[in-house]
Amino acid sequence: MSRLSDRDEAITMSNDRSPVTVIGLGLMGKALAAAFLKGSHSTTVWNRSAGKADDLVDLGAVRAETISEAVSASKVVVVCLSTYEVMDELLAPLGNELSGRVLINLTNGTPDDARKTAKWAIDCGVDYLDGAIMAVPQMIGASDALLFYGGQQDLFQAHEPLLKLLGGNTTYLSDDPGVPMLYNLALLTILYGTGEGMLHAQAMLSTANISATQFQPYAAAWFNNVILPLFSSLDAAREVDEGDYATEVSNINTNRLALGHIIKASEELDISAKWLAPNKALLDQMVNDGYGEDSPFRAFETISPVRRNKRS
Amino acid sequence: MSRLSDRDEAITMSNDRSPVTVIGLGLMGKALAAAFLKGSHSTTVWNRSAGKADDLVDLGAVRAETISEAVSASKVVVVCLSTYEVMDELLAPLGNELSGRVLINLTNGTPDDARKTAKWAIDCGVDYLDGAIMAVPQMIGASDALLFYGGQQDLFQAHEPLLKLLGGNTTYLSDDPGVPMLYNLALLTILYGTGEGMLHAQAMLSTANISATQFQPYAAAWFNNVILPLFSSLDAAREVDEGDYATEVSNINTNRLALGHIIKASEELDISAKWLAPNKALLDQMVNDGYGEDSPFRAFETISPVRRNKRS
Ligand SMILES: NC(=O)c1ccc[n+]([C@@H]2O[C@H](COP(=O)([O-])OP(=O)(O)OC[C@H]3O[C@@H](n4cnc5c(N)ncnc54)[C@H](OP(=O)(O)O)[C@@H]3O)[C@@H](O)[C@H]2O)c1
Ligand SMILES: NC(=O)c1ccc[n+]([C@@H]2O[C@H](COP(=O)([O-])OP(=O)(O)OC[C@H]3O[C@@H](n4cnc5c(N)ncnc54)[C@H](OP(=O)(O)O)[C@@H]3O)[C@@H](O)[C@H]2O)c1
Repeated sequence: MSRLSDRDEAITMSNDRSPVTVIGLGLMGKALAAAFLKGSHSTTVWNRSAGKADDLVDLGAVRAETISEAVSASKVVVVCLSTYEVMDELLAPLGNELSGRVLINLTNGTPDDARKTAKWAIDCGVDYLDGAIMAVPQMIGASDALLFYGGQQDLFQAHEPLLKLLGGNTTYLSDDPGVPMLYNLALLTILYGTGEGMLHAQAMLSTANISATQFQPYAAAWFNNVILPLFSSLDAAREVDEGDYATEVSNINTNRLALGHIIKASEELDISAKWLAPNKALLDQMVNDGYGEDSPFRAFETISPVRRNKRS
Repeated sequence: MSRLSDRDEAITMSNDRSPVTVIGLGLMGKALAAAFLKGSHSTTVWNRSAGKADDLVDLGAVRAETISEAVSASKVVVVCLSTYEVMDELLAPLGNELSGRVLINLTNGTPDDARKTAKWAIDCGVDYLDGAIMAVPQMIGASDALLFYGGQQDLFQAHEPLLKLLGGNTTYLSDDPGVPMLYNLALLTILYGTGEGMLHAQAMLSTANISATQFQPYAAAWFNNVILPLFSSLDAAREVDEGDYATEVSNINTNRLALGHIIKASEELDISAKWLAPNKALLDQMVNDGYGEDSPFRAFETISPVRRNKRS
């Protein structure tokens, strides 16, 4: 997918104080609106439960009484709601009001949700950017807060100063509006894997009356000295890209056994290890296939459909 | 479990050059033996496949022809094998030779494996420490390499200078010899959760022809700015310890939806999301129970058998 539309109008840049509307004032939407206010933009807000706008009004935001009023108040409309379904429900009736405006959607969904919404926007004459916020509300506005955008690159560039108010690490990824959501879901998958591991770990220790606070210094050392070098380094990335799984570090045999010990001990302690079973099955399979001496990253060859298809 | 045995003999400290034996010369055992050699200890080694001793012999190690000879060569015997089963098989016939010596076992297993081996050691008149290596072979000897020990504390203290050659962050945890393995499996669970998340993430991106190397800088930023503060901080540990799950950061509703998007997108991309299903079911259950606005860490109340039993 390359350019999404040829627009008649030239893109107008958002300037220092151009008005902006924020729709959706949950934990994240409130932080977005506050960042625009801090950047001296006249900010109109709307939320289904109107009370969530109170603090923002105190900071100078204008509360719109209806969502239609909210959309009409600004050229740039930023949306941050629970789901694309909710957004569709709220915005579909407002195609006319939105026409000629810029819609920046920071709602979480799938890449296909983003692509479908981008198509709908074209049909309505709406300029559309899809974005993904890789930060928590408390980080919004920080120089290292990471946000991804995809869609029309010139549109992104025109509004980059405004978007930079939300995070210094604001990054345009692709003219495919589905790509930010793909990156977003990928990073969230790491977060959920780590979180599941952490709660499972804390639960194991709780059976011996060891608190999460007692465990914390060891977990922190483990993250910094082992997990980050093993998983977030360029070397680890290259291993996967090159598909070269020879190792002098730790092999599949060893990790298959250790995962077996986790599962056995968890069962003995009455902690569900179901979420680890697919990984165990994968390691078993690789040992059966004769890869026991290789690095466990070889699992990528099975997990990635691209690698699977390359071999078949 | 408190003290494991009342020994007649006083414990003798290992001195600067006291001989040590290493049994098991896989990737890890080789690194252990090399660290003892570097520390100027006379080091005897044995491995089933004798060839793995060659490099160590070049560095000055003595190759024992039989495991019995290896055990008899030193007062301190360090074992690093695939499993406790393998260790039992190899050492059970050598109870007599081992009697009066110090056995330090760095093999991976379950807490119960460690406790059973400690009991067996008492019966044989063997001084026993169970340990867990929270480092990869390349880190052995480094000042920040973390190793855990459990069992007789005076025995640990007597041999601490020797053990510190393996890693500066050598830590005695408990007189219960099962506790090091519990910590070890807990930390490994975090590693496997993170690793599973990382390979899944890289697989998602591979479908859009985005390499692991391209993804790496974003993953690194995500680890440092979001994952570490969320999971390895004292604040996160206190949330779990105190069981206070009010949040202004990100709630169960939002994370349940995001995990749903990961699963849906993964299925569309032909990437198995089976390992995420138990976590999704847990988030669904918490929403059903009326906890949608709470922090996802509330899952700990279900995962930990201690918290579950407290409520029932
Ligand atoms: N919090 C984070 O750390 C974070 C980080 C990155 C991205 N995000 C994304 O940002 C989006 C919002 O998250 P959040 O943390 O702000 O969640 P939240 O606090 O639960 O807020 C949800 C928002 O959606 C609105 N909403 C839900 N159903 C609706 C409906 N049927 N009609 C109208 N409005 C409806 C809510 O309105 P009411 O107030 O009336 O219920 C509220 O404004 C999500 O897509 C999330 O994935 C959040
Ligand atoms: N590598 C790491 O990063 C790491 C980190 C922390 C802890 N550990 C732990 O250290 C231990 C060893 O790991 P490793 O990485 O060295 O694994 P490895 O390279 O696969 O070595 C396995 C060792 O066990 C021996 N062995 C296996 N089955 C045997 C049998 N039936 N009889 C005699 N010897 C047998 C092997 O002998 P042969 O050479 O004759 O096969 C070899 O010495 C494991 O418990 C592991 O969990 C490893």
